[in-house]
Amino acid sequence: MTMILIGMFDSPFVRRVAVSMKLLGMDYAHRNWSVGKDFDRIREFNPLGRVPTLVLDSGEALIESAMILDHLDERAGADRRLLPATGEARRKALRVMAFAIGAAEKGVAQIYEGAWRPREKWHQPWVDRCNAQMHGALAELENACTQTRPWLLGEKISQADITLACVTTFLSDTVGFGAHTYPALQTLVSRCEALPEFRAVRVPFYTPSPQ
Amino acid sequence: MTMILIGMFDSPFVRRVAVSMKLLGMDYAHRNWSVGKDFDRIREFNPLGRVPTLVLDSGEALIESAMILDHLDERAGADRRLLPATGEARRKALRVMAFAIGAAEKGVAQIYEGAWRPREKWHQPWVDRCNAQMHGALAELENACTQTRPWLLGEKISQADITLACVTTFLSDTVGFGAHTYPALQTLVSRCEALPEFRAVRVPFYTPSPQ
Repeated sequence: MTMILIGMFDSPFVRRVAVSMKLLGMDYAHRNWSVGKDFDRIREFNPLGRVPTLVLDSGEALIESAMILDHLDERAGADRRLLPATGEARRKALRVMAFAIGAAEKGVAQIYEGAWRPREKWHQPWVDRCNAQMHGALAELENACTQTRPWLLGEKISQADITLACVTTFLSDTVGFGAHTYPALQTLVSRCEALPEFRAVRVPFYTPSPQ
Repeated sequence: MTMILIGMFDSPFVRRVAVSMKLLGMDYAHRNWSVGKDFDRIREFNPLGRVPTLVLDSGEALIESAMILDHLDERAGADRRLLPATGEARRKALRVMAFAIGAAEKGVAQIYEGAWRPREKWHQPWVDRCNAQMHGALAELENACTQTRPWLLGEKISQADITLACVTTFLSDTVGFGAHTYPALQTLVSRCEALPEFRAVRVPFYTPSPQ
């Protein structure tokens, strides 16, 4: 039996899992389900109604991307794992990932404003706050990317690069960066997006809408 | 120099860090800053403008609670760490924590609807969706709590218990559970909340509001 990955690749959370599995040479069956129209179907596997959800060979469902990645790294073993197990390298990777995930969440909040409520219920000050938080995080990521060699942790691609690239591409496709530019970040993202493991799971953004 | 913990204890994310540090016997100086009125002050340490943020002795700032807990566990060492490092116990704990954090996030989304936007911008279908997702996760937690011995992972309290208790108390204080009852969950939460490490950082909820 093979593992089942639930969720659409336009979500950076789903995509970082898919890219990681490809880099680790792990197969999965894909269920291309939307958190909008497939909400009830997703909840059968994950009562939170969120993606990604990864159903293991045993039938056990892992329900959150960080938890999924943690498990995949344990399966991959010490030499192949994508996030260092301990020490300064782990802390550095987790810091990048926390800023990337934070930026993604603040991007999602801006997108959801348009996706889940009618125009007259939009509240610009809330969107502006989320946008400021997103750019605060992106500026930190830009700073981190000025020191790649050629990847964030050195000679090998790690989960820091993967998460950062999936999130940046997602935000660039959806919220956009307006007048802000992040040249070092964009260079690293282009290096990632050129890899076959990233190209295989690159899709345009599909705006969710209520069932 | 001592570590500095930024954020108010009415946040379950801040509180789970504070409880963990107390259980691990690690000192911290506390900055009781609000994500509303102290937003700019928080962003000096964490450009995402989120709490908890933990400033280490070195001056390095850890910006997200899972990352902070990961680092504290590494400092604590294999015998004292609160989240098992590998294996089935880790996966079980992470599953509980993912449902708890997911429930908390869906609770925060409901609270933010009231805190960050005027009454005429509230959108009940969105709040209802978040509420359904929160209860989906709480039902999973209730199920997990039917098998405590006396803690979720056995004889020793773990991060699964801590996170679950901080989140449940927070949701009970704020969103409320309406007609839903979670007896096994409440039993475990009461066991946690009776401990001095939890009581020392129990405060009423302070509704954030724009600066």
